Amino acid sequence: MSDIPNIPNEKKPTPKSIVLTSHPSSNVGAKPLPLEWGAADPAQRGPVVATLKNPGGKNAIGTHSGAYSLYRALAIAAGQLKAEHKPDLTNTAPAEPLGPFPQWADPEKIVSIDPWGHITSQVFAKQINAGWDIRPTIAVTKAHINMPELHDAVRAGRLKPDGNILAANGDVKVTKVAIEPVWYLPGVAKRFNISETELRRGLFEQTGGMFPELVTRGDLKVFLPPIGGMTVYLFGDITKLGKPATRIACRIHDECNGSDVFGSDICTCRPYLAHGIEVCIEEAQQGGVGVIVYNRKEGRALGEVTKFLVYNARKRQEMGDRAETYFQRTECVAGVQDMRFQELMPDILHWLGISRIDRLVSMSNMKFEPIVASGIQVVERVPIPDELIPADARVEMDAKKAAGYFTDKVPDQDELKKAKGRGLEE
Amino acid sequence: MSDIPNIPNEKKPTPKSIVLTSHPSSNVGAKPLPLEWGAADPAQRGPVVATLKNPGGKNAIGTHSGAYSLYRALAIAAGQLKAEHKPDLTNTAPAEPLGPFPQWADPEKIVSIDPWGHITSQVFAKQINAGWDIRPTIAVTKAHINMPELHDAVRAGRLKPDGNILAANGDVKVTKVAIEPVWYLPGVAKRFNISETELRRGLFEQTGGMFPELVTRGDLKVFLPPIGGMTVYLFGDITKLGKPATRIACRIHDECNGSDVFGSDICTCRPYLAHGIEVCIEEAQQGGVGVIVYNRKEGRALGEVTKFLVYNARKRQEMGDRAETYFQRTECVAGVQDMRFQELMPDILHWLGISRIDRLVSMSNMKFEPIVASGIQVVERVPIPDELIPADARVEMDAKKAAGYFTDKVPDQDELKKAKGRGLEE
Repeated sequence: MSDIPNIPNEKKPTPKSIVLTSHPSSNVGAKPLPLEWGAADPAQRGPVVATLKNPGGKNAIGTHSGAYSLYRALAIAAGQLKAEHKPDLTNTAPAEPLGPFPQWADPEKIVSIDPWGHITSQVFAKQINAGWDIRPTIAVTKAHINMPELHDAVRAGRLKPDGNILAANGDVKVTKVAIEPVWYLPGVAKRFNISETELRRGLFEQTGGMFPELVTRGDLKVFLPPIGGMTVYLFGDITKLGKPATRIACRIHDECNGSDVFGSDICTCRPYLAHGIEVCIEEAQQGGVGVIVYNRKEGRALGEVTKFLVYNARKRQEMGDRAETYFQRTECVAGVQDMRFQELMPDILHWLGISRIDRLVSMSNMKFEPIVASGIQVVERVPIPDELIPADARVEMDAKKAAGYFTDKVPDQDELKKAKGRGLEE
Repeated sequence: MSDIPNIPNEKKPTPKSIVLTSHPSSNVGAKPLPLEWGAADPAQRGPVVATLKNPGGKNAIGTHSGAYSLYRALAIAAGQLKAEHKPDLTNTAPAEPLGPFPQWADPEKIVSIDPWGHITSQVFAKQINAGWDIRPTIAVTKAHINMPELHDAVRAGRLKPDGNILAANGDVKVTKVAIEPVWYLPGVAKRFNISETELRRGLFEQTGGMFPELVTRGDLKVFLPPIGGMTVYLFGDITKLGKPATRIACRIHDECNGSDVFGSDICTCRPYLAHGIEVCIEEAQQGGVGVIVYNRKEGRALGEVTKFLVYNARKRQEMGDRAETYFQRTECVAGVQDMRFQELMPDILHWLGISRIDRLVSMSNMKFEPIVASGIQVVERVPIPDELIPADARVEMDAKKAAGYFTDKVPDQDELKKAKGRGLEE
């Protein structure tokens, strides 16, 4: 590692000159920093560098913090933050060690996360000392969480406080991990069975011209998309991750703000999440590890405006809100039934060193199939207990069961025709 | 309105040619569609058009759905959605009428929301019939929500079910509104006391070159930033909005996923949100309107990775986690104490026709001051009841009170020095 070159002095752009990233002339002589995606040794892999300061000292398109990069830009434009601010990362290293796992060395197992993103300060220390602008894309901390539903589970005798993982006051000890998306474009393209060129062009054109470097800088292979990332909540002894004997309970949860926070009764999101946490606590109490992945993919990644438009269309249609037309109403408005793309989702499981899930707390085939296709064994699928389904959410549940979700009771055509959701005025 | 020109036939881009938005030649002859921000008559204001299909038939930079535009782009690149899909918006109109209010006709009162965004199909029907690609940026629906904390409030006698707003089973009737950000760039710049050029340049350069049109197309005055928007929950009879006699209770809540969903005990976010909802229900039961605004500004708009890095730094510092150094640890990592920019926040209140808030459920001066400066009267500020503050969140609460948050008990220096937060290993 003694051959780390110093980054040439950062050019301060003169105040009057704007460098348009799409003009070939602005990139003359700018060769990306070396990066070998999937290399087992981080020295060989090389860091992801998305610095704004020096077009010659980077290898990624975009910048850090996902969509929050816009707020950072606003802070600098408004004079409240210095563009040259370098984070002081003292004491910020992971609260517990995590990895490396063999999956990190497979360039195709993980394509949307930087597996070394939480320990950049450690594995890329020499580069940082040589002046490279390297920032963490993952943070690992510890917390106590407390959800009212878990109190109910204790009262009902389903959960028993153990004084460690689950305290008598309902506090649950967790390790939690925040992750920003880091897309290795050749790997993402392969996941969707398209060419890298098609992917780059689609991302550029269909966002209204975001990041011309997607099409002008084919040599920059990594993209930090301005989208929400994910949070992982881990229950139990996380040093057991990556060991085949460790039993794993897991729920992959896609954000639904209306239910997750406000308890809206049109879907089963928060009840199923709370049930997943209950199963994770049980598993951890028995010596396994529980894993909740919370993905920022509001409204099937269509966003909440589209979601609410669909709610109105469902509740106003002739014959009322019924399972029969559940997916169709979304497709009319959005053009697709679902935009979550679970193709990239298994990455997080491989990052955690998981090769078998003993209890998958999900009925969704759209989640189950890519997990299994990515080489992870699923032993048991845990449906949501019937008593946790809100009345208005029967429409969703029936539609999903009829569409092939995991269940032992597939509703028939007559059942699907019944209006079960409230009208808008009720 | 008979003079709405037909949009010239949409050019289908030939598969081989990529139009780089930053090349002046690609924009030759493309004049933006007319838009007069703040005009009282929607016919005169004109619609916001951010179509991808026709550079001559738009007036906005970027595209719809905020950060979810990336998923849409991915869907098209992967061949799962047709680029030319036009939404079928049958039955999607607002579940209840909302506005217009006099504030909509003031170009400086609202600069980050399109006030006509929920009724585009109605007020721009002629343009839509003439082929303009106009999409809603706001959706209004109705829902029932149910939060366990409200059951506690009923049990404790603080809330009484009335069979309408609050049912005996804890269900609360709400009208809810999802809003995507629509930035009128001259207005946003003015809010931050910078020039439009400085704003455009900062947004372009500090995001790593996102949207060259920010700097090449000064004639496009509207920008749809790829960031999270907001959701508004309204309690009571919303036809009373905009009437001076109507009492308004309000909490402006900035997203904190760890507390809002999982009940992490390091902060007061979910307890304060639940208390705000309680106050809103009370107000609605007495004939007023309750307003909860949920802003997608995770971790003070620094994102969750930065937030967790700061948690580690706080809990590991010498002398433990204490109020004295609460803000400092964020500033070391992020360069600022807070990146939420409440400068744009009052827009939503003006959109709702609010000119007086009777009960503001917030202790934050960073929220109070811009609300008052924007011309809205605040009658009473409601602090979080002491018994709702989790033990580990005392650090945050003391630090904020010492920094000038609304309170009758400002902690002294000795108090601030006491370590009150758990260590990482506890």
